Amino acid sequence: MTTDNRVGAHHPADAGDLVRLSINQQTVRQLSIPQLVRGCRALGIPGVGLWRSPVQAFGVERAAQVVRDAGLTVTSLCRGGFLTASDPREWNAALADNRAAVDEAATLGTSTLVLVSGGLPAGAKDLAAARERVAEAIDRLAPYAAERGVRLAIEPLHPMFASDRCVVSTLSQALELAERFPAEHVGVVVDTYHLWWDERVPEQLVRAGRSGRIAAFQLADWVTPLPEGALLGRGQLGDGCVDLRGFRERVDAAGYGGPVEVEVFNPQLWQRPGTEVLEEVAGRYREHVR
Amino acid sequence: MTTDNRVGAHHPADAGDLVRLSINQQTVRQLSIPQLVRGCRALGIPGVGLWRSPVQAFGVERAAQVVRDAGLTVTSLCRGGFLTASDPREWNAALADNRAAVDEAATLGTSTLVLVSGGLPAGAKDLAAARERVAEAIDRLAPYAAERGVRLAIEPLHPMFASDRCVVSTLSQALELAERFPAEHVGVVVDTYHLWWDERVPEQLVRAGRSGRIAAFQLADWVTPLPEGALLGRGQLGDGCVDLRGFRERVDAAGYGGPVEVEVFNPQLWQRPGTEVLEEVAGRYREHVR
Repeated sequence: MTTDNRVGAHHPADAGDLVRLSINQQTVRQLSIPQLVRGCRALGIPGVGLWRSPVQAFGVERAAQVVRDAGLTVTSLCRGGFLTASDPREWNAALADNRAAVDEAATLGTSTLVLVSGGLPAGAKDLAAARERVAEAIDRLAPYAAERGVRLAIEPLHPMFASDRCVVSTLSQALELAERFPAEHVGVVVDTYHLWWDERVPEQLVRAGRSGRIAAFQLADWVTPLPEGALLGRGQLGDGCVDLRGFRERVDAAGYGGPVEVEVFNPQLWQRPGTEVLEEVAGRYREHVR
Repeated sequence: MTTDNRVGAHHPADAGDLVRLSINQQTVRQLSIPQLVRGCRALGIPGVGLWRSPVQAFGVERAAQVVRDAGLTVTSLCRGGFLTASDPREWNAALADNRAAVDEAATLGTSTLVLVSGGLPAGAKDLAAARERVAEAIDRLAPYAAERGVRLAIEPLHPMFASDRCVVSTLSQALELAERFPAEHVGVVVDTYHLWWDERVPEQLVRAGRSGRIAAFQLADWVTPLPEGALLGRGQLGDGCVDLRGFRERVDAAGYGGPVEVEVFNPQLWQRPGTEVLEEVAGRYREHVR
């Protein structure tokens, strides 16, 4: 077992250009955690983003060890959040679940827990009130997370998810939430899929960078038509209309130098051999991002 | 034939509360133009919003006369636009088509031509450049429209349509475009479905009202899950999570006193008897909007 888990350790000599690349587990859902780790290591991809549910099924400690043994890094854990319940019992249960997520992130050795806020409770129409419940929850969770070396990363989701998944729809809103807390405790996730359409993003990236709030940078392309439910319609890098390289350059210019995590929810990718998809992602990353 | 086409003329005495209501033809696609007009008149609904394609199929002059004869008003014509082509020939063809739309609006006696900007051309990634082509087209079209008593009404569509349908995604962007031109020539459409999620809407409505830019107010509710393609997933008033009454009150407070046009694209409504849907819309309007 190696304890060297620096980003980029152990990658093949010709893969230095992938030194910032991370593969989110959802991009290759067909791969088990060991398969994912082996595939990334073989290609010189130094990071993986993990999800709670498959990690729990595999075993959190075990997952941590498999990644560590391969010399890879867990760049983020997805996801905490869903903190908008108006029923106090539900809201407290969500807090407890998020504390568990923090523990899992700490075990995995990642400092980034992605938070998806949650949507409107059934029958509710007040987005601002729901956002306030998220803020109150973060106020409770952030110290707990900080003590464990984990930063909460608020992810704005595309406005098409505002009612059922995430009441935080723009980078501006995410920053307004995050800025109520110390930057080392609460940051934001910048995801091209959710933000590409918003003309305010360049100025908001500057704002986010200045205060050190960019906790994670995730990539997917925007393609249409959207599938039913909109959730699984993300595009492979280069298949859509997002200026991924321009976006990455802006994020870098804002002072972010961390992992670039590819997170593409797309059933077409899941039907193909996972290692083939990993190779394709690496190639697309070189062509469209780096 | 009557020539009295004031809004609200000829409605039953007990329907004074519907005096601002207009039914967009797409809400009851199963009704012919004469059926739509008869159904609205019977319920005391004084306005209809029409679409170019069914109007052309029926005959523009003839549609104008049917509406006029019933003492109803055409509150808007949908839609011009699709002005983002980067190919000059396509762009000029779009201009010509929009001049025809202006002529049709004038014939129908409506002063409001709704413009949906158009999406990104195939392979393009530059939203700002596409918006500039829209601005240039409006610069050409607005005088032509103004001479015919027609105001161009820029409609921001939900960001989920930014790539394939409308590069103008927010009320703020629509106003920035409109404000390059005189308010009597170019306004904006405020549609609850497209804008409900955006926290900046209240301040942008004030801005729009102050400069007299609100050319039309359209209503649909937001419901999930979105259907494939996202286009036909609008909710009947009251079925979703939009605070329709609060929204209408803000639009009124901004100084708008014009028609409130219900435009719900929803195949479930089209499968029911059209007059039943009209009655339901009137009831929902009373319950959730007025």
